[in-house]
Amino acid sequence: MKAVTYHGIRDVRVEVVPDPEIKKPTDVIVRVTKSAICGSDLHFYRGKVPMDEGFIVGHEFIGIVEETGSDVRLLKKGDKVVAPFWVSCGVCINCRNRVPTSCIGGGGCFGFGKAFGDIPGGQAEYVRVPFADSTLEKVPENIEDTKALFLGDIFSTGYFCAEWANIKPGDRVAVFGDGPIGLFATASARLFGPSLVITVGRHDFRLDVAKKLGSDLVINSRKEDPIHKILEVTDGRGVDAVLECIGSEEALSSAVKITRPAGTISFVGLFTGAVPIPMLDFYLKDLTLRGGVCPSKNYISQLLPLIENGKIDPTAIITHDLPLSETPKGYRLMDSKEENAIKVVLTP
Amino acid sequence: MKAVTYHGIRDVRVEVVPDPEIKKPTDVIVRVTKSAICGSDLHFYRGKVPMDEGFIVGHEFIGIVEETGSDVRLLKKGDKVVAPFWVSCGVCINCRNRVPTSCIGGGGCFGFGKAFGDIPGGQAEYVRVPFADSTLEKVPENIEDTKALFLGDIFSTGYFCAEWANIKPGDRVAVFGDGPIGLFATASARLFGPSLVITVGRHDFRLDVAKKLGSDLVINSRKEDPIHKILEVTDGRGVDAVLECIGSEEALSSAVKITRPAGTISFVGLFTGAVPIPMLDFYLKDLTLRGGVCPSKNYISQLLPLIENGKIDPTAIITHDLPLSETPKGYRLMDSKEENAIKVVLTP
Amino acid sequence: MKAVTYHGIRDVRVEVVPDPEIKKPTDVIVRVTKSAICGSDLHFYRGKVPMDEGFIVGHEFIGIVEETGSDVRLLKKGDKVVAPFWVSCGVCINCRNRVPTSCIGGGGCFGFGKAFGDIPGGQAEYVRVPFADSTLEKVPENIEDTKALFLGDIFSTGYFCAEWANIKPGDRVAVFGDGPIGLFATASARLFGPSLVITVGRHDFRLDVAKKLGSDLVINSRKEDPIHKILEVTDGRGVDAVLECIGSEEALSSAVKITRPAGTISFVGLFTGAVPIPMLDFYLKDLTLRGGVCPSKNYISQLLPLIENGKIDPTAIITHDLPLSETPKGYRLMDSKEENAIKVVLTP
Amino acid sequence: MKAVTYHGIRDVRVEVVPDPEIKKPTDVIVRVTKSAICGSDLHFYRGKVPMDEGFIVGHEFIGIVEETGSDVRLLKKGDKVVAPFWVSCGVCINCRNRVPTSCIGGGGCFGFGKAFGDIPGGQAEYVRVPFADSTLEKVPENIEDTKALFLGDIFSTGYFCAEWANIKPGDRVAVFGDGPIGLFATASARLFGPSLVITVGRHDFRLDVAKKLGSDLVINSRKEDPIHKILEVTDGRGVDAVLECIGSEEALSSAVKITRPAGTISFVGLFTGAVPIPMLDFYLKDLTLRGGVCPSKNYISQLLPLIENGKIDPTAIITHDLPLSETPKGYRLMDSKEENAIKVVLTP
Repeated sequence: MKAVTYHGIRDVRVEVVPDPEIKKPTDVIVRVTKSAICGSDLHFYRGKVPMDEGFIVGHEFIGIVEETGSDVRLLKKGDKVVAPFWVSCGVCINCRNRVPTSCIGGGGCFGFGKAFGDIPGGQAEYVRVPFADSTLEKVPENIEDTKALFLGDIFSTGYFCAEWANIKPGDRVAVFGDGPIGLFATASARLFGPSLVITVGRHDFRLDVAKKLGSDLVINSRKEDPIHKILEVTDGRGVDAVLECIGSEEALSSAVKITRPAGTISFVGLFTGAVPIPMLDFYLKDLTLRGGVCPSKNYISQLLPLIENGKIDPTAIITHDLPLSETPKGYRLMDSKEENAIKVVLTP
Repeated sequence: MKAVTYHGIRDVRVEVVPDPEIKKPTDVIVRVTKSAICGSDLHFYRGKVPMDEGFIVGHEFIGIVEETGSDVRLLKKGDKVVAPFWVSCGVCINCRNRVPTSCIGGGGCFGFGKAFGDIPGGQAEYVRVPFADSTLEKVPENIEDTKALFLGDIFSTGYFCAEWANIKPGDRVAVFGDGPIGLFATASARLFGPSLVITVGRHDFRLDVAKKLGSDLVINSRKEDPIHKILEVTDGRGVDAVLECIGSEEALSSAVKITRPAGTISFVGLFTGAVPIPMLDFYLKDLTLRGGVCPSKNYISQLLPLIENGKIDPTAIITHDLPLSETPKGYRLMDSKEENAIKVVLTP
Repeated sequence: MKAVTYHGIRDVRVEVVPDPEIKKPTDVIVRVTKSAICGSDLHFYRGKVPMDEGFIVGHEFIGIVEETGSDVRLLKKGDKVVAPFWVSCGVCINCRNRVPTSCIGGGGCFGFGKAFGDIPGGQAEYVRVPFADSTLEKVPENIEDTKALFLGDIFSTGYFCAEWANIKPGDRVAVFGDGPIGLFATASARLFGPSLVITVGRHDFRLDVAKKLGSDLVINSRKEDPIHKILEVTDGRGVDAVLECIGSEEALSSAVKITRPAGTISFVGLFTGAVPIPMLDFYLKDLTLRGGVCPSKNYISQLLPLIENGKIDPTAIITHDLPLSETPKGYRLMDSKEENAIKVVLTP
Repeated sequence: MKAVTYHGIRDVRVEVVPDPEIKKPTDVIVRVTKSAICGSDLHFYRGKVPMDEGFIVGHEFIGIVEETGSDVRLLKKGDKVVAPFWVSCGVCINCRNRVPTSCIGGGGCFGFGKAFGDIPGGQAEYVRVPFADSTLEKVPENIEDTKALFLGDIFSTGYFCAEWANIKPGDRVAVFGDGPIGLFATASARLFGPSLVITVGRHDFRLDVAKKLGSDLVINSRKEDPIHKILEVTDGRGVDAVLECIGSEEALSSAVKITRPAGTISFVGLFTGAVPIPMLDFYLKDLTLRGGVCPSKNYISQLLPLIENGKIDPTAIITHDLPLSETPKGYRLMDSKEENAIKVVLTP
């Protein structure tokens, strides 16, 4: 089959590789009908996280069950399924505790190499899914692929960030980030009835999409100081919640400044190392900081009806739909933001 | 001054009565700029709850502080204020516990006679407000009267019903009632991100307003069986939450039938006497039933920004704006639903 | 094998019946090491709920896995397991939604006849457990049978009643009922840090056990009016939460009277038919009523460490440990309360 | 009157100063019957936070209302009152939002100098209390001073730390710190029904008190590595919640290591500057970090019944009760931990 493999910094290729096979009785093989390039794929593309040479990448995909292992009980050939980016066994203490991304029963991330479970990814024609019963979620046939595709990562991640922010109707919310996750965090924040959603980004073409998805006020931080502006529109008090969707130390420090007493900072941006937090301000204001890697599995069935009933249209962020063979171009666009790229999806 | 007084079943009159005066140092006098007839006013109008002859009625009003008692600290002449329908002392155990409608320090309901605290009402040119600091809420001058007026009762009551229903994003919700409170419950349910809001009523002209306020599906129970329809559109499972805004035993029994296991029934409709609940179904499904009289005081400042920022337009339910002198006509319209009356506001 | 079967009102017998066999690949056979007679077994014993002639009864048991079906993944021969009283498939919408007692995938109650899933019970030497992976919970070998046995029903049911009552540290709580569930509700209420737990019952010998399990004040309602007493010790205000563990209409009405504004009434007592609730009082006080059949499955692993670490000793309620052959005597004792019987356990 | 004043590092003196007087109509004068030296007083004593020369210090006190300003409505001469350490106006946005420690209406901390509101402290014979109605809490006369004294700071602070840690019955909890706040956090954690409370400290004589207050396992970090030990007793999984009561960067980093996925770290220790947090671990485990300065005001009436009913005896931590004149000795003891000092109270 054809699959996207990693070969070095800014070097991904579409290659012919062996078709995946059932290895364990709990596996299924999925025929991918649509996949996507995720902002987190840029981490290895840019050489910021290590990746194994020749590894099949990609962790956002939707498709049809093609073959099932002998212990698979809940899925059958022909089922339409979407994959959360993290494989989970379903029975370990963390899976039972509803933290599948901390699965200790053999889980891991699709397409992130040996360090994350050695599970080949979904930018491919076919993909093997371990622990298929507990990992995959069924999707009704009549839902378009591009509408359900993002449930497995960026939509659920944006939603998770909003959910953990403890937003109440009437609240004021700031979202830091205008990438796909920041955009879905913006759309998800709306689900909690805020009176004001502010999206802070660095690209007008993305902030325009934020407006379409429900942002009341967008701030391009290249043109305007977001801290000053946010304090101005909140009478100096700050917002009730900040959703950090960048992974920026500066944004995290800013968040402490612009969150009102007893407010919440929720983050899904990836941080590494020892990040300095201005703890005196944090202490004096009784803040809450929470977040991390999204347990997407938990949210797919919850969010699906919002798509089915037209409450949120996830396709609003798609700027490019390329054939799988043009995946390298897709990475270049996502990396460079040329052609005003926001989200590139791939059709095998 | 002119005021609306009660004189018997379906007999309210606009009379000249003595101006109210400061009686206690914590009182203020408010000059009413807009008041409204509430569905609960129809209880005494129809003779279903007792009312004192000659009592000044009405409990929804907005206005300007005209005079303040010597112990009033937070308000001053000229402040624009909206009144929750229930007066509360602010310091008794229940007020401290955020249940001002159970105030035991001298609170009560405006315009409901001696049984409810003997506090003359707001369908008048002026009204005395006891415990003004803890009862009244300030409103920015630039908010139109008709936009903020309903915060004191029907908007906050509809919101309370939705808040207590434990609605999560993606949930399916049924609202029973197409009166003003059912309509605000519909609009408020939307603030919690449901995938489906169903409004059940008996009047197409009201259900049309429900659609404007965010209902996805309206059911006229005179034309269609709501239980059958709701189960049909929820695959037989039922909704996650029911908001009962009528005070109907039948609706309450229906709610038990159409709520999914571990779901919630929230009510704000007034019930009296011993109401039969189908408890075996309730037991087998692990339901929650909660509700009552809305502690409006708690919600005014929370909901105000949603109006200021245009997220909800409460004026959508106003069908008639009459001069105070025509109040008896207003009661007739609300009572009979002639002229497709939904909500009648009054201008002194 | 020997098993306890039903033969009419107050007629249970120990008979020799065929050994159970694996019928479906997800079944296991458990060799019972200890079982118990539950208060709810008295419902059919007294003829209040129908039961099939010759049906094997009993739904509280602990034992050792003896044989496993071909699709059982999580259990193996020799594992020590405790059964929740309700079998659950683990994958239907209600199981996923954490309401296993509303399982629509083939679940049901052990030992309650055809109306409840036709699943033979656990007052026997062996029992077939359907959907064993999702139904059973493992128990460490070093925990005594009598300590873990009640996790499957009466301990988890008492805990569920306390959990749903929304008790906060410092709160005052009233428990209605001095049967095994009332006693475990008393002990469980303590886990939420109340300043006062009141247990209302009708038998001094049971109320003495309530004291041992953490009740601060016991009221024998044959000697003293509980409503009057509870209002007296709470300065007329009432308690923050009531835990109804009887299934008594009168207790439910009393609960409405003695719960403070915005308090909670949680129930696990079985009610049938249309139960009258004094809804005007309920409405004026903004109460919450919730409860039903306990999803024991959810609580076993949570409560087990409290037993392991000696925080709660469930054996405190055991008054009789009989050989299985004397089960009919056990029913008589539980029914009549002779010999101050509270809880009878059975050893095959 | 006599009062304790600051004169430099490790130099506090008992001096004769002018009696305090009512300055604003909302003030009262309290005659102090018992005060205490708080661990946070050691911050200025050791020169770690600035303090004004001659300023009257101390923020834990209980006493009798001696004189009331003309606008005081809720208190009268003779009332027994306890003061939270933070003065709050009761009406600003943060006070209304239940964060009185972020009061912007003129609040501040007793006895912490001009930087914290310029409010003379309570280690004195008399103290002026601003915004007395909203700041002070009444205490029943029959409660001993030493039992209620700590509600204003260390008991409520320990409780706040436990409450924000989201402890559920059965959970495992680690408390870092064996000072007065760590000890009250230990006792407060118990109120949430954990199966295991571990207290980590550096002094056996304090850890002995931790055991009396409910700690199941104490670790003296001078003798044993707490991280290793905690992971060992939790099967490598870690605890559900950490309560950080020191203000130690190392403890905070350790907390991230020993908290289970989706667990909570709650802190009340004072941090200053930019504190490094190991964010990759935090991210991968989906943690929550929350805490700060305790809004004691919120907790006094909640915790009082636990003392009244004997559920917690706060006097367990008192090691010295000195006359006010010996306050300098009290500071020396608290600072040096000589005489196994834990908590020194003062009698004017």
